[in-house]
Amino acid sequence: MATRMAIIASKGSLDMAYPPLILASTAAALEMEVGIFFTFYGLDIVNKKKYANLKVSPIANPAMPVPMPNMIGMLPGMTAMATKMMKGMIKKTDTPTIPEFIKTCHELGVKMWPCQLTLDIMNISAEDLIDEAEKSCGAAMFLDYAAEADITLFI
Amino acid sequence: MATRMAIIASKGSLDMAYPPLILASTAAALEMEVGIFFTFYGLDIVNKKKYANLKVSPIANPAMPVPMPNMIGMLPGMTAMATKMMKGMIKKTDTPTIPEFIKTCHELGVKMWPCQLTLDIMNISAEDLIDEAEKSCGAAMFLDYAAEADITLFI
Amino acid sequence: MATRMAIIASKGSLDMAYPPLILASTAAALEMEVGIFFTFYGLDIVNKKKYANLKVSPIANPAMPVPMPNMIGMLPGMTAMATKMMKGMIKKTDTPTIPEFIKTCHELGVKMWPCQLTLDIMNISAEDLIDEAEKSCGAAMFLDYAAEADITLFI
Repeated sequence: MATRMAIIASKGSLDMAYPPLILASTAAALEMEVGIFFTFYGLDIVNKKKYANLKVSPIANPAMPVPMPNMIGMLPGMTAMATKMMKGMIKKTDTPTIPEFIKTCHELGVKMWPCQLTLDIMNISAEDLIDEAEKSCGAAMFLDYAAEADITLFI
Repeated sequence: MATRMAIIASKGSLDMAYPPLILASTAAALEMEVGIFFTFYGLDIVNKKKYANLKVSPIANPAMPVPMPNMIGMLPGMTAMATKMMKGMIKKTDTPTIPEFIKTCHELGVKMWPCQLTLDIMNISAEDLIDEAEKSCGAAMFLDYAAEADITLFI
Repeated sequence: MATRMAIIASKGSLDMAYPPLILASTAAALEMEVGIFFTFYGLDIVNKKKYANLKVSPIANPAMPVPMPNMIGMLPGMTAMATKMMKGMIKKTDTPTIPEFIKTCHELGVKMWPCQLTLDIMNISAEDLIDEAEKSCGAAMFLDYAAEADITLFI
């Protein structure tokens, strides 16, 4: 059996959307079998209306590349500016955008499952999801998949 | 040996208290063996005085279901409102509360260990913990348990 | 083969810098083989100019030991105060500082790899990194290492 990686993606901010997709596409390129379960805020990463416009928060994040005192981070427009700065840094090094990463993951055979409970709680329908996503599933199905994995990560 | 899942629960906000408990109870219902190590802010999930009243932050969370500009999120009362909104969404879909989930996990045999170092750092005594919690333990004991697990997650 | 733990450290705040180092040093003391991949904000933990001065955010963190209404958390100086409070609590229980933990991890043979892509995105050079860090590497190399690990964690 191929090495398998099972990832739970639970965050929906731009910066935390990258790690599951970078790890998944890298592993799939190494011929690992990879599945991602998108749950809680992580569902935004496979939400057609949102995935191209995920945001970075400039406040409460003292570890960001460009530190910003909290009062300044609160000014209107600062979420947009922090997001733009991160997009700029990413562009400079030719890192793909989230939709580009999703496409690559899909082409490499990464399975991307939306969490059914999250769809219910957030009142989101299957039509709101990107075409690359699999049919939604529950935690039980994913745990069965993860039980056979060599690498399991909650992001 | 049964499939084993070892979870480290390190967050104490209402939204991030759900994932360890949902995953643990689902896995236990599938007859997996499950242990959770409650450490750092995650200790609040097994703190008798806190676990029924965990909060959601409305700011610095651009991925929340109902987006809110930072300045508005700062107004007094907004943490309470974000918490109430999430509780409302959860109730609508009949998702159990945190105390209900803890009870279910306990009945299904999930082991819930408070981290001894966190108890010391935060100056919390064993009497402050919920009855369903096991005796506190250290990271070494938990790592021994996790070394034999099929699924390991840091939440 | 010895039990192996593979950790991805992705956060750069003071509170979230502790878990990877506590788990790594504890595991190494138990004679496990341990490797940490420092990526995204987690790179700050091996950044010579930053690792002794990581900060805790007082806002958007309703689960902190000493709760603080958001408006108060926004006042200038509150990040410094929250950081000082946490350092005080840590000192009281003789928990080592981040640089002390890094030194211990290194002495116990923990491998600490900086993420090459993060170095590129954030425009950080190898000279900015602490002496205890290994040569930087990519996600592919780390995933190969993690595929053989018994415990895998994303922090």
